Amino acid sequence: KINSERLWDSLMEMAKIGPGIAGGCNRQTLTDEDAEGRKLFQSWCEAAGLTMGVDAMGTMFMTREGTDPEALPVYVGSHLDTQPTGGKYDGVLGVLGALEAVRTMNDLGIKTKHPIVVTNWANEEGARFAPAMLASGVFAGKHTMEYAYGRTDLEGKTYGEELARIGWKGDEEVGARKMHAYYELHIEQGPILEAEGKDIGVVTHCQGLWWLEFTLTGKEAHTGSTPMAMRTNAGLAMARILEMVQEVAMDHQPNAVGGVGQMQFTPNSRNVLPGTVVFTVDIRTPDIEKLTSMRSQIEERAAKICEDMGVGCSVEPVGHFDPVTFTPELVSNVRNAAETLGYSHMDIVSGAGHDACWAAAVAPTTMIMCPCVDGLSHNEAEEITPDWAAAGTDVLLHAVLETAEI
Amino acid sequence: KINSERLWDSLMEMAKIGPGIAGGCNRQTLTDEDAEGRKLFQSWCEAAGLTMGVDAMGTMFMTREGTDPEALPVYVGSHLDTQPTGGKYDGVLGVLGALEAVRTMNDLGIKTKHPIVVTNWANEEGARFAPAMLASGVFAGKHTMEYAYGRTDLEGKTYGEELARIGWKGDEEVGARKMHAYYELHIEQGPILEAEGKDIGVVTHCQGLWWLEFTLTGKEAHTGSTPMAMRTNAGLAMARILEMVQEVAMDHQPNAVGGVGQMQFTPNSRNVLPGTVVFTVDIRTPDIEKLTSMRSQIEERAAKICEDMGVGCSVEPVGHFDPVTFTPELVSNVRNAAETLGYSHMDIVSGAGHDACWAAAVAPTTMIMCPCVDGLSHNEAEEITPDWAAAGTDVLLHAVLETAEI
Ligand SMILES: NC(=O)NCCC(=O)O
Ligand SMILES: NC(=O)NCCC(=O)O
Repeated sequence: KINSERLWDSLMEMAKIGPGIAGGCNRQTLTDEDAEGRKLFQSWCEAAGLTMGVDAMGTMFMTREGTDPEALPVYVGSHLDTQPTGGKYDGVLGVLGALEAVRTMNDLGIKTKHPIVVTNWANEEGARFAPAMLASGVFAGKHTMEYAYGRTDLEGKTYGEELARIGWKGDEEVGARKMHAYYELHIEQGPILEAEGKDIGVVTHCQGLWWLEFTLTGKEAHTGSTPMAMRTNAGLAMARILEMVQEVAMDHQPNAVGGVGQMQFTPNSRNVLPGTVVFTVDIRTPDIEKLTSMRSQIEERAAKICEDMGVGCSVEPVGHFDPVTFTPELVSNVRNAAETLGYSHMDIVSGAGHDACWAAAVAPTTMIMCPCVDGLSHNEAEEITPDWAAAGTDVLLHAVLETAEI
Repeated sequence: KINSERLWDSLMEMAKIGPGIAGGCNRQTLTDEDAEGRKLFQSWCEAAGLTMGVDAMGTMFMTREGTDPEALPVYVGSHLDTQPTGGKYDGVLGVLGALEAVRTMNDLGIKTKHPIVVTNWANEEGARFAPAMLASGVFAGKHTMEYAYGRTDLEGKTYGEELARIGWKGDEEVGARKMHAYYELHIEQGPILEAEGKDIGVVTHCQGLWWLEFTLTGKEAHTGSTPMAMRTNAGLAMARILEMVQEVAMDHQPNAVGGVGQMQFTPNSRNVLPGTVVFTVDIRTPDIEKLTSMRSQIEERAAKICEDMGVGCSVEPVGHFDPVTFTPELVSNVRNAAETLGYSHMDIVSGAGHDACWAAAVAPTTMIMCPCVDGLSHNEAEEITPDWAAAGTDVLLHAVLETAEI
């Protein structure tokens, strides 16, 4: 078993970097805080005897040598970046859990045939630079480097500039590494495991996603002196689209969600009807047919809503992944490890996207989930217990050892 | 008649300060551009022989002496601040038209019994600091200085700090001046005069207004892993309130409007259901009973919408004025001036709020309107013709001379 206290201490140390305003974290991608978190993680890894490689997207690969020089490494990780008002565990548990697994192997003098690479993927959250899982997406060949470097934040800074600025642009070609397998431990970010009273989620699938960025063009006009009949009201069109997205999601129950997290009015003045309203619709479901149906219904109905109001409507997809089925052999390893260790477990579908979803395109991959309080995530109040963290990390250690071969 | 070319040149000179991105202006209250515009206006006034007073809210009073030392001044003005994407005439025509009237009196050697004070009220727009017409509101005793100085922009800077920073905090007590009368020339900002083919709007009333700032509190949560049934979705509640505001406005037709110009999601991340949504509802009508009825319907129905969704809802009024009836004698002066000068005219109700609405509480007051193309205002594409500007300013000159007594 892993050292639960050491794991928890590391989680709490990391949480001090980029502290939030309500007990969580604000350690967004490619900020100074991200750089500081990386340095701390690097120092821990070096103390554990790992050697560092960094690729041109800024992903950190920390290698523990294996006994067979020919054997491909088993990758284990997640991400250290957070939402602007994020929690202490989303991503971080997967990275520091992987480090704890390696520390435990060191303590016990365990050697593996395959090297083990503790991985911190860059820009998983996609909060500052859409889409999410950007570096793993480039790694898996889903995006070009040009696309990734050109992604901009709300201030217009690009990923490429900011990566160089914080000093974490590595020299490894992205995706050049070959993986024997990839494991990722993550908090569930949903309510199921806690409600069912299970320690471990054996993740069999991951939902697919579309992020649809709408740009509605109305006519900027005075809110007081513009009669109702003369308005081209992009704000009202937005409201109708939000209600429609809700309807579409409800029409596709069960196992489908839809909502909007990002919204920008321009010029955003109390007495000006907005000239432009930009927002991103997030839809997800594990069923590829439903996903396609939701997207097309939303786009068609939004176009109709806007047409009826004389509002211009353009839609740009800014994030996408298909539903993923994880590798059955690795899924079994996870289930067996939970069983052997005596942890209660159930099969589960990941509601969130993860770097594992892209890794699955290039290597045998699976995930392990642990519960989180009230299913809350992407919220500073995100919480887990030390026991949940330890159980997930124990299962991770055992499943990884199975694949890395002692 | 006034010098149309000189007026137009001054309008075009002023428009170069704080230029917009699409032909209009961005000269928001208490910015460096506001300070630069004030300097230019001051230099023009001093060249025309006017002497300056500035009050503690930053309003500029430029006095042309009268012949009777006992006579109270006639005030004539409007505002030089603009919306973030504002036009070249909204407010500016009223200030520079007043200056042009004085310049014409100088040219013709006209002396008046009452002094004439060309006035540039501070923060009329209310775009950066709500509410609109802030300095004239303090002048009329509607707000305290503490309230006004404490108003904050979106970055949290206060009115008091920013006024000191740009160096325009005057030493006059606000509201200490007594007015014989107040005249304001303004573009209509609506479509009626142009549609009716009239040169001059004789303004008899002004609509009343409420600005209701809603703060909706939902539960920040992951857009992917939070099932539909577990959401406390403040964004969706906002959408329902926007649709309801539209309904309430339509239910109060004719002569009532309602809309939303300002919107803020927090944390504003694509994969986070917003924890907080803040937006301002703007409702107006010239009928005080309708205004009260609209406000109470909106507040009641919003509370119900939020209650049904478990979303927290608080409402703070951040702007208000009752409908105003302008002084009949001055209204007649305007109508007679238009008649004498041979300009086509009609009576009209102001759709927008103006400093004249507050001045009306402390002095005989009225307004003159000229048409604007397509009724468009609070838009960089706001446009008028030199002839419209000249006609309005001619009428202003004649009405002011009637009241100031030659
Ligand atoms: N796990 C997680 O929150 N990832 C961010 C990408 C997503 O929105 O699913
Ligand atoms: N005239 C004008 O646009 N004033 C700003 C205050 C308002 O919104 O009516």
